[in-house]
Amino acid sequence: MSPIHDRLSAGREVVFAKEAKGLSWQQLADALERSLVWTTSALLGQQPLDAEQAQKVGGLLGLDDDAVAALSLPPVRGEAAIDPTEPVTYRLHEALQVYGSALHELIREEFGDGIMSAIDFELSFDREEDPKGDRVKLVWSGKFLPYKVF
Amino acid sequence: MSPIHDRLSAGREVVFAKEAKGLSWQQLADALERSLVWTTSALLGQQPLDAEQAQKVGGLLGLDDDAVAALSLPPVRGEAAIDPTEPVTYRLHEALQVYGSALHELIREEFGDGIMSAIDFELSFDREEDPKGDRVKLVWSGKFLPYKVF
Amino acid sequence: MSPIHDRLSAGREVVFAKEAKGLSWQQLADALERSLVWTTSALLGQQPLDAEQAQKVGGLLGLDDDAVAALSLPPVRGEAAIDPTEPVTYRLHEALQVYGSALHELIREEFGDGIMSAIDFELSFDREEDPKGDRVKLVWSGKFLPYKVF
Amino acid sequence: MSPIHDRLSAGREVVFAKEAKGLSWQQLADALERSLVWTTSALLGQQPLDAEQAQKVGGLLGLDDDAVAALSLPPVRGEAAIDPTEPVTYRLHEALQVYGSALHELIREEFGDGIMSAIDFELSFDREEDPKGDRVKLVWSGKFLPYKVF
Amino acid sequence: MSPIHDRLSAGREVVFAKEAKGLSWQQLADALERSLVWTTSALLGQQPLDAEQAQKVGGLLGLDDDAVAALSLPPVRGEAAIDPTEPVTYRLHEALQVYGSALHELIREEFGDGIMSAIDFELSFDREEDPKGDRVKLVWSGKFLPYKVF
Amino acid sequence: MSPIHDRLSAGREVVFAKEAKGLSWQQLADALERSLVWTTSALLGQQPLDAEQAQKVGGLLGLDDDAVAALSLPPVRGEAAIDPTEPVTYRLHEALQVYGSALHELIREEFGDGIMSAIDFELSFDREEDPKGDRVKLVWSGKFLPYKVF
Amino acid sequence: MSPIHDRLSAGREVVFAKEAKGLSWQQLADALERSLVWTTSALLGQQPLDAEQAQKVGGLLGLDDDAVAALSLPPVRGEAAIDPTEPVTYRLHEALQVYGSALHELIREEFGDGIMSAIDFELSFDREEDPKGDRVKLVWSGKFLPYKVF
Amino acid sequence: MSPIHDRLSAGREVVFAKEAKGLSWQQLADALERSLVWTTSALLGQQPLDAEQAQKVGGLLGLDDDAVAALSLPPVRGEAAIDPTEPVTYRLHEALQVYGSALHELIREEFGDGIMSAIDFELSFDREEDPKGDRVKLVWSGKFLPYKVF
Amino acid sequence: MSPIHDRLSAGREVVFAKEAKGLSWQQLADALERSLVWTTSALLGQQPLDAEQAQKVGGLLGLDDDAVAALSLPPVRGEAAIDPTEPVTYRLHEALQVYGSALHELIREEFGDGIMSAIDFELSFDREEDPKGDRVKLVWSGKFLPYKVF
Amino acid sequence: MSPIHDRLSAGREVVFAKEAKGLSWQQLADALERSLVWTTSALLGQQPLDAEQAQKVGGLLGLDDDAVAALSLPPVRGEAAIDPTEPVTYRLHEALQVYGSALHELIREEFGDGIMSAIDFELSFDREEDPKGDRVKLVWSGKFLPYKVF
Repeated sequence: MSPIHDRLSAGREVVFAKEAKGLSWQQLADALERSLVWTTSALLGQQPLDAEQAQKVGGLLGLDDDAVAALSLPPVRGEAAIDPTEPVTYRLHEALQVYGSALHELIREEFGDGIMSAIDFELSFDREEDPKGDRVKLVWSGKFLPYKVF
Repeated sequence: MSPIHDRLSAGREVVFAKEAKGLSWQQLADALERSLVWTTSALLGQQPLDAEQAQKVGGLLGLDDDAVAALSLPPVRGEAAIDPTEPVTYRLHEALQVYGSALHELIREEFGDGIMSAIDFELSFDREEDPKGDRVKLVWSGKFLPYKVF
Repeated sequence: MSPIHDRLSAGREVVFAKEAKGLSWQQLADALERSLVWTTSALLGQQPLDAEQAQKVGGLLGLDDDAVAALSLPPVRGEAAIDPTEPVTYRLHEALQVYGSALHELIREEFGDGIMSAIDFELSFDREEDPKGDRVKLVWSGKFLPYKVF
Repeated sequence: MSPIHDRLSAGREVVFAKEAKGLSWQQLADALERSLVWTTSALLGQQPLDAEQAQKVGGLLGLDDDAVAALSLPPVRGEAAIDPTEPVTYRLHEALQVYGSALHELIREEFGDGIMSAIDFELSFDREEDPKGDRVKLVWSGKFLPYKVF
Repeated sequence: MSPIHDRLSAGREVVFAKEAKGLSWQQLADALERSLVWTTSALLGQQPLDAEQAQKVGGLLGLDDDAVAALSLPPVRGEAAIDPTEPVTYRLHEALQVYGSALHELIREEFGDGIMSAIDFELSFDREEDPKGDRVKLVWSGKFLPYKVF
Repeated sequence: MSPIHDRLSAGREVVFAKEAKGLSWQQLADALERSLVWTTSALLGQQPLDAEQAQKVGGLLGLDDDAVAALSLPPVRGEAAIDPTEPVTYRLHEALQVYGSALHELIREEFGDGIMSAIDFELSFDREEDPKGDRVKLVWSGKFLPYKVF
Repeated sequence: MSPIHDRLSAGREVVFAKEAKGLSWQQLADALERSLVWTTSALLGQQPLDAEQAQKVGGLLGLDDDAVAALSLPPVRGEAAIDPTEPVTYRLHEALQVYGSALHELIREEFGDGIMSAIDFELSFDREEDPKGDRVKLVWSGKFLPYKVF
Repeated sequence: MSPIHDRLSAGREVVFAKEAKGLSWQQLADALERSLVWTTSALLGQQPLDAEQAQKVGGLLGLDDDAVAALSLPPVRGEAAIDPTEPVTYRLHEALQVYGSALHELIREEFGDGIMSAIDFELSFDREEDPKGDRVKLVWSGKFLPYKVF
Repeated sequence: MSPIHDRLSAGREVVFAKEAKGLSWQQLADALERSLVWTTSALLGQQPLDAEQAQKVGGLLGLDDDAVAALSLPPVRGEAAIDPTEPVTYRLHEALQVYGSALHELIREEFGDGIMSAIDFELSFDREEDPKGDRVKLVWSGKFLPYKVF
Repeated sequence: MSPIHDRLSAGREVVFAKEAKGLSWQQLADALERSLVWTTSALLGQQPLDAEQAQKVGGLLGLDDDAVAALSLPPVRGEAAIDPTEPVTYRLHEALQVYGSALHELIREEFGDGIMSAIDFELSFDREEDPKGDRVKLVWSGKFLPYKVF
């Protein structure tokens, strides 16, 4: 039993069961009392779930015991977590390719020598209504961490 | 004269001159009447500037004619635009590695089969004050584009 | 059950059954009331099919329930969708290698700073009769999308 | 003097001079009595030009002798000819990622075992007017070549 | 059932059965009325076989029905067809590394702007007797194809 | 002075001077009393030339002293010697991709466990006249070398 | 003037001048009132120096004005900062290859879901005397950062 | 039975059983009379265990015979031992990217031409209490090995 | 049945059985009347064994019929034969990185333009006793092969 | 002045001057009172030379002051030291591909868990006379280093 395989395949079973049951990610987030993005990320395999959380999700989705057990394995956050060549994902990377050096410079000017944390980090997802076509709105918030001088 | 080299090296001269003159990115943005992120991205080489804009920036920063000419060459938006192994940039990519599959699923659930555009796209940068340490706040807004069925 | 594996392997079963039944891609396209290229792409795994469409195709081709279920999983559009070293595919890529920079320049001259969409996009396939040997004719049509200035 | 460098840098000088002179690719194509796409591709460095053609282009654009000499060096058609990570170019590749396996199958069904030539090949570029936003239209035409059985 | 796996594994079963039966590639070629190189290439998985040819080979080699069915799947000609790091194969690639630029120049001088086809192509294999040690002799013959000027 | 750079750039100067002087590779081969392929390969940088040979070629082509000196540097036979993505070269590699495993098997059957040498190796280049279009004919001859058993 | 090139080449000039002057890294660290590791890292190009610090180092080492200016450019911390194939460096990476998964597990057990920071991080270097051969002793200290749950 | 697969999968079973039994790595280290880091590394698959050690660990964790047998296979220390893109591991590599060239220089100055061994090497792991947030402390100790001059 | 998988997995079974039976590689070499290095290489999968040799080894080690059959499949000598990132193997490669250009120059000076064969090649392995710690001694012997001039 | 460039280019100047002066590597080794392989490796750039050694070599070869200074820069031992695709070098790597796993097993059986050092290492080069063609003989001697258990 490979944890990498299991958390990712458990994530695929979640997606399948969720569509069969007609549940939304928001309903699953409400059940876990977590935000929409964190919950989706956790159920796909990128955040840790404890046994109780896995049980609760398993109950809602009608997952079998193996899938429930797999949901509480350690998260999978390496490159296996994502296919960067998939078109939706690619555009997110491309935006960083185009605007990343500007973000680097703006952080350096505004905050000094350091980074925007990807750990003390949160992300929200929203639909932004627009008469010219609705938009996806993402808010990224990460703590600034200064490089230690020693 | 390589446009790739020239726009990127012109960007480095902008950074150097801007620090020597004690100007901020916001002041340059005000001069161009564009947003902070777009302006920074343009002056580093990732957005087009017309001759008049290049002239205005060149005047403020005291750039020589060659640098001004280079600023209005076509933008450089391929992989040469960024070093993904640089620590500030890396964390932005890592956030996509961890949260990207969730974003893909959420877009699919909320909007259907399609993508968040990286072209009809805008990005803002802000400091979010926080007693536990200030945070970098980025707002990404991209039009949803449905796959054409034909 | 990996969706990537399943949609792609379902696609291979479609090809196998289609040849066994003596059906053409056009006949399958007519059944789905979609174009030839979209239908072929969908049945090989790159476009979404709803349950009804999957059922209709499954009935025509005599697929079993698992294959039918797999046909309505999310599409596979990342690099797993294609082998770029396969000779037919390689020549399509090579044409872009040779003519791609010209297309970039022509788009920039004619339309301005932006891209030809690969999402609001359609493609047709035809045989072009020619006494010196028939030709493959592809028509690509993609909406021009201007970069947003903000 | 590296021919790779020279043809590509000559191509950049062509773009620069063309914009300074206010000429269009179509005007250059008319002068060479070639199509729009072939001419653009040739002047950027991917097709051969003889001394007379180089001279004619050099005269129109006011290029110096070195640039004119460089224009008649052998064409550069390897991977140096294009940056596949540049956003305009990337979408052309992505369309092949999504539709390439369908094209392979359709060629196999319609023509048999063989390829669409990238050598006996031509490509046109047009603006397709559309009330929902104009479109880029590309027509690819390549001779079908059957694999030789021996 | 993956066709890639199947044609390649069918090829391995052919090699195994051929050695068990004491047959030579030439005998198999005679049965198919094809050349030695084409036949070997086809039975290893790189050329198409129709059902009748697959049946004939299966009968001679005593293959089971699955292997016979697999032999008439589409050929596998992408990078999965060969391991370029294997020593026999590596030397063939190295010869191109050493003599390839000369061949390119000689084709350009003798034929003009174009390629030697790998599709309208045939290859023979022979033992060349030599008192200093016998030699492998390969004759490559490919149609010259001129680049289309349009 | 980098020998890699120098032998390769000397090769480019040879091509340039040869075209300016209207000489053929065969004339240069006759002057060196070597074969057409070896001579072309040597002058492009992949075979050693002694000082006398370099002098003779330099005289015929009117090269300056630096280029003559560079021609007798050690040969460049690593991956810098060739661009495998260039279309003429790519097809030679693709032929190995398609027929390489057959050649491996045929060598193993005919000669036993060993390789076809790329060192005790020679190669000829010819035009093969054909009413359906002339063909490029290459004859490869390499000594069979058995693996030593010890 | 490329900042990447300049900070790294300035670092090489520091090494050269330091050896010519017979200074030690510790003496330079004392002058900057920073630790040994931070100082060495900064002078090689991986930490920021302000103008005053650059001036002080330049004075001690007798650097010219260009090198002094280059020393206060932004730090270079991407992959250009190091050659991982160099033997000293390789062994540091190999130790992570062998012990990294253990460190990951031990952090997870002791601290929970999170990382050891590479930003709020310090490192010391010492000689550990040992009769069987002196040892290099490195102490790594990085703040534990828990993943934010939101 | 692949030893690579088996030692790594045995390591995953150890982690699973350890959490089910509520044991700590320190308790397992005490049982083996080895240090915390070595024991964790060995049980995850990177150090050799003899049959007696495997038996002792298997007894404590309630592993089955296959897992016990797998624990005494040769260690797995190649790149399969670790996923460098996993965020915890990545930061360890990044620290080397930022401080590695300084370590190289400091070893060269202090010890001369040679390396810090990754074989005659030990590593400790500790929690460092800190009011601003506890820290991970790693002590690396590796014998200096001078390059042999011969 | 994949020959690559089978020869390599048969090699792993040989190692396992050899340790269970308490046999040494030398004893297996004596049984085959081959050298120590060739025998070990052959049993791990890199040299051909005929049916009789496979039978003899199978008998000594108590292998089952499948493993014996697998031992006489063609050898596996491509990159699958070795993991270059494994620490023992890495150091052998690193020695070539450090001393390889010297060997190239010394072969060129002593023998002329050509290579040291890896086919007409043998290798011995010995323990070299040394009071400062025993050493591994390898003797490589490969026939010099001059490049053919034609 | 890049030390990587300088030591490597100094090495190329050594080769050039040595051939012009008609000196052998052995004569240079005698002058330095070092072995043939170490000396060649040092003069090509992979071992350190002190100022006196650089002076002595510079005198013998008639190098200018810059080249002499470059000879005493730190050695270059990373991947820039060698081109692994060059045919002479490739065969050395291929021998490791074929015999490396055997060496790993033999070291493990004879010495236990550890490596053959590439640092406490020496290498000799000899011509082995053989009526069937002279051979290159290399003797590798590296200290066995056991993994530390802690």
